[in-house]
Amino acid sequence: MTPPFITFEGPEGAGKSTQLARLASRLAGAGVPHLVTREPGGTGLGTRVREVLLDPALDIDPLPEFLLYSASRAQLVREVICPALSRGEVVLCDRYADSSRAYQGAGRGLDRELLETVTREAAGGLTPDLTVLLDLDPAVGLARAASRGQPDRLERADLAFHARVREEFLALAAREPGRFLLLDATRDPDTLEEDIWAAVGERLGPDLLPTA
Amino acid sequence: MTPPFITFEGPEGAGKSTQLARLASRLAGAGVPHLVTREPGGTGLGTRVREVLLDPALDIDPLPEFLLYSASRAQLVREVICPALSRGEVVLCDRYADSSRAYQGAGRGLDRELLETVTREAAGGLTPDLTVLLDLDPAVGLARAASRGQPDRLERADLAFHARVREEFLALAAREPGRFLLLDATRDPDTLEEDIWAAVGERLGPDLLPTA
Repeated sequence: MTPPFITFEGPEGAGKSTQLARLASRLAGAGVPHLVTREPGGTGLGTRVREVLLDPALDIDPLPEFLLYSASRAQLVREVICPALSRGEVVLCDRYADSSRAYQGAGRGLDRELLETVTREAAGGLTPDLTVLLDLDPAVGLARAASRGQPDRLERADLAFHARVREEFLALAAREPGRFLLLDATRDPDTLEEDIWAAVGERLGPDLLPTA
Repeated sequence: MTPPFITFEGPEGAGKSTQLARLASRLAGAGVPHLVTREPGGTGLGTRVREVLLDPALDIDPLPEFLLYSASRAQLVREVICPALSRGEVVLCDRYADSSRAYQGAGRGLDRELLETVTREAAGGLTPDLTVLLDLDPAVGLARAASRGQPDRLERADLAFHARVREEFLALAAREPGRFLLLDATRDPDTLEEDIWAAVGERLGPDLLPTA
């Protein structure tokens, strides 16, 4: 049995990285082999593409922005994620294809057919078994992100942009309730961690999660 | 009347950059406003993407490689080429979409439908009015390129790869004889320059090329 591929989605400031780290820690405690990665990034190529995408000095139009995210994703799937799943490791990924749908599709207004065509090819057919969506009011998320320093390209977009992104995430979760775990990001981090751990336990099954 | 968009295609070592510079010089001498650019590159984003693509230390799979070239192209068309044509400038570009067809399509074996879909969107409907194809036996081109120093990612591919690239360039030229000027790159550079100048003169017309 292939172990689950788990993605974390939601706006900046929703606590994705925190909850991802807590899940990784619990998997480690339970002796479950796992790999943690992120988008954009995760490979030599992806790290370079991430630097380009997050550089606020660069002019990047919506289409090239999407193609850069897709290039990073295509390399990450082939070089890191699929090999890890084949080795029997659970894979946790901070952002994946749903972020392109939300940010480039709904946010930037990119053509949806092109977006799905390229995303399907970049993902090589790999879809998450579980997507943890940390939902948050954009105004709250932006304030949290801003308090951490220099805002990046996406954080600088206006509130209407981020409202479209949130609506798209919620629409995706409504369309695939079996894949998405929709969580209110303003809840207590410890409670969120428990909810995520319970959902992961269901996906892992008794063989992979001996102490569940 | 929009001035012509002219691309130079062919393998490394065929003399594209030399002939492009000579054409630019003749346009300058004739007082024709023009802009010189190249792929990948030509914009802040493209320059960064070019560094990534030409870095021999990076592992880059065929699909992400193509997406990176397309990202650079999409930004170049929108930020540089279309505005220049709108200002009435002839645009000379060292490589364009035909290079993706030859290198990523025929060379790397990328899915042709995806390639054409993404290329059409990246180019935003902009196709060259004239494409100068400098045809050269791959063995000769690689020897010329190697004599200039460290080979890049594409130059290091094997001879069979470069043979497929050449065949694709020739097939593209055969399919669109009105767009392509097919030249034997082993001919004398001065004669090549004259042939290119004559073909450009036809596209410019008497209004744009007063001294032709």
